[in-house]
Amino acid sequence: MTVQERQVVFDLLRSIPAPGSMSIPELRAMFDQAGATTKLPEDVVLEEVTIGALRAEWSSTPHADPTSTLLYLHGGGYTFGSVASHRGLVTNLGSLAGVRTLALDYRLAPEHKFPSPVEDAVAGYRHLLDQGFAPQRIAVGGDSAGGGLAIALMIALRDAGLPVPGAALCIAPWVDMMLEGDSMLTKAELDPLVSRHELTRMMGEYIAEKDRTDPRASPLLGDLAGLPPVMIQVSSHEVLLDDAHRIAGRLAAADVAVRLQVWPRMPHVWHLYADMLSEGRAALAQAAGFLRERIR
Amino acid sequence: MTVQERQVVFDLLRSIPAPGSMSIPELRAMFDQAGATTKLPEDVVLEEVTIGALRAEWSSTPHADPTSTLLYLHGGGYTFGSVASHRGLVTNLGSLAGVRTLALDYRLAPEHKFPSPVEDAVAGYRHLLDQGFAPQRIAVGGDSAGGGLAIALMIALRDAGLPVPGAALCIAPWVDMMLEGDSMLTKAELDPLVSRHELTRMMGEYIAEKDRTDPRASPLLGDLAGLPPVMIQVSSHEVLLDDAHRIAGRLAAADVAVRLQVWPRMPHVWHLYADMLSEGRAALAQAAGFLRERIR
Repeated sequence: MTVQERQVVFDLLRSIPAPGSMSIPELRAMFDQAGATTKLPEDVVLEEVTIGALRAEWSSTPHADPTSTLLYLHGGGYTFGSVASHRGLVTNLGSLAGVRTLALDYRLAPEHKFPSPVEDAVAGYRHLLDQGFAPQRIAVGGDSAGGGLAIALMIALRDAGLPVPGAALCIAPWVDMMLEGDSMLTKAELDPLVSRHELTRMMGEYIAEKDRTDPRASPLLGDLAGLPPVMIQVSSHEVLLDDAHRIAGRLAAADVAVRLQVWPRMPHVWHLYADMLSEGRAALAQAAGFLRERIR
Repeated sequence: MTVQERQVVFDLLRSIPAPGSMSIPELRAMFDQAGATTKLPEDVVLEEVTIGALRAEWSSTPHADPTSTLLYLHGGGYTFGSVASHRGLVTNLGSLAGVRTLALDYRLAPEHKFPSPVEDAVAGYRHLLDQGFAPQRIAVGGDSAGGGLAIALMIALRDAGLPVPGAALCIAPWVDMMLEGDSMLTKAELDPLVSRHELTRMMGEYIAEKDRTDPRASPLLGDLAGLPPVMIQVSSHEVLLDDAHRIAGRLAAADVAVRLQVWPRMPHVWHLYADMLSEGRAALAQAAGFLRERIR
């Protein structure tokens, strides 16, 4: 990254109004529009499908292994984000990894609260099994809330006696609804996008009267034994840094294979700005290498 | 790894007497002899050199970039280990990475106490600078005590106003002379080689009357700002797991690029048994990929 690249991206991000200052429809529309500007792989083919009542989108490129799939769960604090907002990230990741992707529009809060997204993620995964995909050729992945949801999904699968996937990719995952990471405070000034205040508000909309310590809401607090290899990518300049570091420690303690990558001074989920940031492209390439190694 | 491979290695390791039950000469001889059985790259060329009063050994292969070097600091609790005990690990790593290696016989406790090994590591690094190597083409690396020493070296270099290297590789680093990691207890039963008891004894021989919290003795407690990218590899079945996890967190907080890899159920520094364990070969390949990416 050049200093100029970084400045452009940070200036852009600091100009975005706080999510809490917008209405839910405004917020969702803004993120979907922002995502629509991202370049897709030139040779990608998209296919919209429905899984029960859920919308989802397949992506594939000519060199993708048709038997390997990434099930992707977008970020957005469980209240916004969609297949559209993350289409660039997901399709480029799939293209680089040489796998198909299935991006899922799981239900969002405040209309749909915990555990609806977890149930939807399980439904998406079951759909892949029903389609004949071998679990070890499936990776689950997500960023931010979607990164936490990917781990919650694996906990739910294991507890339901279903086969877990072959790998998981978590980009800056939000795994603690108690919001207890030190970086919530120590990195507050450095994070142009996320704050403890906003996370607290979104947590309230997502969890409502449910138990914040439920492992499917806060996978940091859950039993993580039996999970497949997990790659975690996070920036050093974000309030969720300690969520990433702590879940890596908990996974390690439970004998899960972990790869934690900390990238200095990036904005939250910098992969979304890969068109502008060389580190976004490099991080996608690293994540793709992990997927290629594990599920192809 | 097959279950058989793992069992052979663990049985072997559990048959080794505790370091504290041997005399220092016996202990050192045993480790050097064990290391001598490791296969070296077929095309490796070794060259013994002296740096001041220190013995050191260059390795190179025909495909190694002559301008890129790994300065390697062996493990052994600051009391044993040598160029000979780690020759297989170091030369295979250099061969895979396509770099030269310089392995250093730094002075050992109890004859030579802290900060002698740090001073020797600085001398080894200065030797490379004097030879004309560009700092960004040097990586420093080490395992166990040597992994902690690699970070201590970088702190000492930065504090002395010397240029830091281009990267660091730390295999199961021991970075905390206070021995406060949770895994000292939680993984005690699972670790066939290292124990808090043995570490406490070696710490006493190394630190003696000096300050255990000196950052060059316990880099976990130091200021880590300005350090180059660090890769850390550790097993989930070792008492030093939390040293690796905690130093990764401290490096991340200081805006250092970090890659932490946790490998399930391996013995401490399983890279030493690469002839027997496929994970040893795989971990060396991962480490070599990092070096290749950073200093070639």
